[in-house]
Amino acid sequence: MLIIGENINASSKRVAEAIGRRDALFLQEMAHKQVSAGANYLDVNAGRGRGTEQEIEDLKWAIETVQAATDVPLAIDSSDPQAIRAALAHYSGKAAMINSVNAEDDRLRALLPLTLEHQADVIALAMGDGGVPRDVEGRLRACDRIMERAAAYGVPLERIFLDPLVLPLSVDTDEGLVTLRTLEQIKARYPQAKTTLGLSNVSYGLPLRGTINRALLLMAMYLGLDSVILDPIDARLMAHIRAAQVVLGRDPFCKSYLKDYRRGTIKE
Amino acid sequence: MLIIGENINASSKRVAEAIGRRDALFLQEMAHKQVSAGANYLDVNAGRGRGTEQEIEDLKWAIETVQAATDVPLAIDSSDPQAIRAALAHYSGKAAMINSVNAEDDRLRALLPLTLEHQADVIALAMGDGGVPRDVEGRLRACDRIMERAAAYGVPLERIFLDPLVLPLSVDTDEGLVTLRTLEQIKARYPQAKTTLGLSNVSYGLPLRGTINRALLLMAMYLGLDSVILDPIDARLMAHIRAAQVVLGRDPFCKSYLKDYRRGTIKE
Repeated sequence: MLIIGENINASSKRVAEAIGRRDALFLQEMAHKQVSAGANYLDVNAGRGRGTEQEIEDLKWAIETVQAATDVPLAIDSSDPQAIRAALAHYSGKAAMINSVNAEDDRLRALLPLTLEHQADVIALAMGDGGVPRDVEGRLRACDRIMERAAAYGVPLERIFLDPLVLPLSVDTDEGLVTLRTLEQIKARYPQAKTTLGLSNVSYGLPLRGTINRALLLMAMYLGLDSVILDPIDARLMAHIRAAQVVLGRDPFCKSYLKDYRRGTIKE
Repeated sequence: MLIIGENINASSKRVAEAIGRRDALFLQEMAHKQVSAGANYLDVNAGRGRGTEQEIEDLKWAIETVQAATDVPLAIDSSDPQAIRAALAHYSGKAAMINSVNAEDDRLRALLPLTLEHQADVIALAMGDGGVPRDVEGRLRACDRIMERAAAYGVPLERIFLDPLVLPLSVDTDEGLVTLRTLEQIKARYPQAKTTLGLSNVSYGLPLRGTINRALLLMAMYLGLDSVILDPIDARLMAHIRAAQVVLGRDPFCKSYLKDYRRGTIKE
């Protein structure tokens, strides 16, 4: 189970301000904390809504700053393919992750060749032009489209992390099962591909959000979820992930679980 | 999801002492607390290791005492079929649950007729004479034996709550998957039957036991677990159960979840 740390994201006001004032220590501390809590990737999003050129400059700086502090690979996160392209050219080290494509032609055309050029992995959202499909079939059609295009470009299928997506349960209580069934179908249809999930949307508008997030995550782990985008500093969430690995027989002798417990990165 | 409250059990020293001194208020308060926390059944076990006659007297008194305080049905819990028989004769009210039979002939012969006589449900453990089978196939063979005998006696199959059983992960990290796969197979093989699980054994010998218990429970709920034996006073555990019901689309408009949140019986 790969943990993608979500904290370095300019949609957070504190992060956007730190990027604005070029506060390297702020970003580097955030990077360190996530890595020592167990992050295998760090997501970096520098989109402050000030146009492509500013975002490219911000993103390059943020990547350089984070890479000076840690050698875990980064997930380069932008809604702007140009920013991702520029950032990848600036990136060095272990294979990056592109966050993200979806089934839209323009995005696929812009970003799939970059996965080859930079040997990068890519997160692919199960949606197209028309927004997030409400049903399992619609999301699978988006995945089919992505996988067809990836195959056409010659992208190795194991570089694709398909995200079944999740909408808030507060809006419609069918959303949990739509996500889980889409995930189950993706695993069956594309056994070579990987999967990922951005968790926190599911609990939007409900109390005890962490509990809802954990409930979804543990069921997704049972279905074989390969990676997840979350806040790794959340020691209770990380404890449930490590516990799930034990329950699923993926942690021989509970070695990782006991190590994390002794290090204090997981708690009840 | 039926919650079977486990707290009134003479294996707890405080409960055994309360039974010994005929402390009705102690038992009744324990009953009330579990019911207001969400228990649908209360397990009552009065086995203090003082022989059949004493257990029968103790169990009758405990049942009478608990039934004077609440009208939720009871799970009559004893390793001694004679004690269960005497207790059922003394029991009144909604259909009781017999806890438990397994694939042993003597127990099946003694207890299955009682389920008919008293219209009782029965918990059936996936094990026989030789202890708990280590593999899925062994546990399913025990279930097959139980279901054959139940059919022979004419016991309606939906009265049987099959328990796939769980052994401590600290002994063998395969145990989680053995339990989950047994559960999955039971659901496929006996769709009419119900299922149940005693949780806490899974985390024996590990730190953060609650986290391990919740991880197993949420995965079992995804597989359709029908009931669970646990401490309903554990507000965090109950929160995960209610959250799982929301995620699984079984709580329209999150109504139960929000109600329990407002009542304070669930917490992060």
